[in-house]
Amino acid sequence: MPFDALRALLGPRFSTGASDRALHGRSEAHFPEMAPDAVVWPETTKEVSQILRLCTAHRVPVIGWGTGTSLEGHALAPHGGVCVDFSRMNRVLHVAPEDMRATVQPGVTREALNTELRATGLFFPVDPGANASLGGMAATRASGTTAVRYGTMRANVLALEVVLADGRIIRTGSAAPKSSTGYDLTALFIGSEGTLGLMTELTLRLQGQPEAITAAICAFPDMGSAVETVIATIQSGIPMARIEFIDAANVRAFNAWSGTGMQECPHLMVEFHGSATGVREQAASFGEIVTEMGGGAFQWADRPEDRGRLWKMRHDGYYAARALHPDAHPITTDICVPISRLAEAVEETARDIADSGIPGPILGHVGDGNFHALLLPHRDRPDEIARAKALANAMAERALRLGGTVSGEHGIGMGKLGYMEAEHGLAWDVMGSVKAALDPLGIMNPGKLVRPV
Amino acid sequence: MPFDALRALLGPRFSTGASDRALHGRSEAHFPEMAPDAVVWPETTKEVSQILRLCTAHRVPVIGWGTGTSLEGHALAPHGGVCVDFSRMNRVLHVAPEDMRATVQPGVTREALNTELRATGLFFPVDPGANASLGGMAATRASGTTAVRYGTMRANVLALEVVLADGRIIRTGSAAPKSSTGYDLTALFIGSEGTLGLMTELTLRLQGQPEAITAAICAFPDMGSAVETVIATIQSGIPMARIEFIDAANVRAFNAWSGTGMQECPHLMVEFHGSATGVREQAASFGEIVTEMGGGAFQWADRPEDRGRLWKMRHDGYYAARALHPDAHPITTDICVPISRLAEAVEETARDIADSGIPGPILGHVGDGNFHALLLPHRDRPDEIARAKALANAMAERALRLGGTVSGEHGIGMGKLGYMEAEHGLAWDVMGSVKAALDPLGIMNPGKLVRPV
Repeated sequence: MPFDALRALLGPRFSTGASDRALHGRSEAHFPEMAPDAVVWPETTKEVSQILRLCTAHRVPVIGWGTGTSLEGHALAPHGGVCVDFSRMNRVLHVAPEDMRATVQPGVTREALNTELRATGLFFPVDPGANASLGGMAATRASGTTAVRYGTMRANVLALEVVLADGRIIRTGSAAPKSSTGYDLTALFIGSEGTLGLMTELTLRLQGQPEAITAAICAFPDMGSAVETVIATIQSGIPMARIEFIDAANVRAFNAWSGTGMQECPHLMVEFHGSATGVREQAASFGEIVTEMGGGAFQWADRPEDRGRLWKMRHDGYYAARALHPDAHPITTDICVPISRLAEAVEETARDIADSGIPGPILGHVGDGNFHALLLPHRDRPDEIARAKALANAMAERALRLGGTVSGEHGIGMGKLGYMEAEHGLAWDVMGSVKAALDPLGIMNPGKLVRPV
Repeated sequence: MPFDALRALLGPRFSTGASDRALHGRSEAHFPEMAPDAVVWPETTKEVSQILRLCTAHRVPVIGWGTGTSLEGHALAPHGGVCVDFSRMNRVLHVAPEDMRATVQPGVTREALNTELRATGLFFPVDPGANASLGGMAATRASGTTAVRYGTMRANVLALEVVLADGRIIRTGSAAPKSSTGYDLTALFIGSEGTLGLMTELTLRLQGQPEAITAAICAFPDMGSAVETVIATIQSGIPMARIEFIDAANVRAFNAWSGTGMQECPHLMVEFHGSATGVREQAASFGEIVTEMGGGAFQWADRPEDRGRLWKMRHDGYYAARALHPDAHPITTDICVPISRLAEAVEETARDIADSGIPGPILGHVGDGNFHALLLPHRDRPDEIARAKALANAMAERALRLGGTVSGEHGIGMGKLGYMEAEHGLAWDVMGSVKAALDPLGIMNPGKLVRPV
């Protein structure tokens, strides 16, 4: 281990302390602790490069760390090594409002960026719920509630600075809105989960604050009518800014968590962005579909604080459901299917969960065909845990059978590694070849995404 | 050369005839003829796989061929080898209107696809002008007039089937609208110019035909006011479907080519997509900017046939300019800069061209910061050709200095290879490593995109 050299380089920003290591060996999901051997807090790209050179020289694993909010164990250290915590690389380096672009260090969180952007009339739209770091969001190709309108991180990162395993610093992309000059390395690094290099700068595409925003929630008599409303809405081309499904179990959890008195039935939560007229038009078109499908009246959230409350409730879904089942061993799921197969996917999943008797509230970014069941078997009942895992497996297999993917937005990490062969076949080998080309010693986040060597 | 085996496999769909070879050794741009040793016309993915296995076994270069409309010599055969012409793999395999998705073979042209889609109310938006094959468009990451609204090929390809150099057949992506499962191989192949594998199936994202479309052209007193109008329009967030700049020299060429009587000054050609009200709103907002910048009245093209004429004129820009200078050695350029630097980029370029005395009409997809000067030195005057090349060089250097890229949409091929080091630095080496990992023998379109070995 290159610990003396790292200490000499970083001083107090190098630690092998037990609490620092433990903190960086845990995640929000239910993986056992897997701690790194050391944690470093670089402040510059040059330091990241020096760290990687040292780790390459000693063949030591390197794991990037943003805010620790990933759900598939991306930042755990099953092989030990050095955890590179980006929390001190948290500066917004440059905002170019005239080009609707910002360049940030990877440790900047999405909320910090949006706070900094407030005066410009611009915002960064990708919103996975957690106040994740932008580096982490790019590394996992995060998306969330607004992807239906603004796309995932794939569509919203223009350029990167990346440090490779051997310490070389490269720049991908440019500040131009498009380019046709060679392999799309920006896209290659987005979603690579720290297995190909560490991002040290991100140039992001920003959006203008819409002239008008309005949000609403509406109740449905059953799951089928809510999901059919989503399908019809997307197929009709209404440019929804958000369209989220929550089932009755979630509503129950929300009511308990935040004292709301919502009717315990499936709901859709929606948001419209546009001109004042445009938003009215969109809401009217959506309203017609809702009525046709038997949905109830909208409860509008026009004021920013009301909208804030609405989306905070949605984002707290995970915590609300966990609070209702404090003794659970939570298992997250994240399948994504073509919109035409959404009803099938949600309804089969709901039926399986009901049959199992295990709590499993369903919610999701249904406009993208993406939804989550949070399976909550009791932590002391191994048979329940095993059945919950079987349910999660069945969901993944269902997604593949319906032409979809086992992860819409959470990524692979350690949790979904077992599905890569089934989803990608030989293409998974190609990912392994790309990995070997860029990280021949296999020091970058080993045990994640590619086939274990 | 594996000619006997290829003949046995393909029968009359294998040719070493001089005219077939010559036809596949030429392009629309001004490169000398570089013919392959043989041409094959596969009809199935399996045949493509067999062809690649044979070429790998004999270490023979393989070059993909769509419609031959690329502008940077992508499909020329400087090292000979086998040209794989996809014109017989031209079936639309599946249209899923409910998911706004179509799966096509690579030889389907964009016009053929849009003709087939007419009854569905959907269309494929990417429009590079030429009636290129969709495989070729994906391979070069094409864009064109509508990218400002709908994105380039990068945003509009969901999934691929690709045959690798060694004959392995892989599938990338899925039919789901998004995914977070591993490296974005789809994005890696888009823009890879046939250097990593051959695409044999493409799943494309479709768009709903807008409820209302209207197009217009308007005149400006000078280049500066037209370009400033574009910048203000993009910055104001009006969701333009197209916004194209043409300079006075182009208008002169159009008038001569198609008998129009347009005022010989800079123009913008625009199109709005949306609801009837939305289109009116957009046009009104745009009109305010035009007036403020001193532009003239709009000439509207509301009827489909008028719009067709308008965009045909734009797409014929290259031919119109060449027709006006039949003795020219045409040199195309394709720089793309951040929108805030567009005025600088266009005006410096125009000044250089004026100073040179060489004809060089300017037009482009200015909403993306992308424009082309078509330099037209006389083919018999080597000094003019040399000065035109110096102008093209100066444009590329200007693009890089302004934070942009040397190619917005035409790609690298052979023509832009000399700028890759300057634009990408060490990242170009990384492209070379990826290439070596997927095509270790270097048989896939050698001499293009990556550093020559």
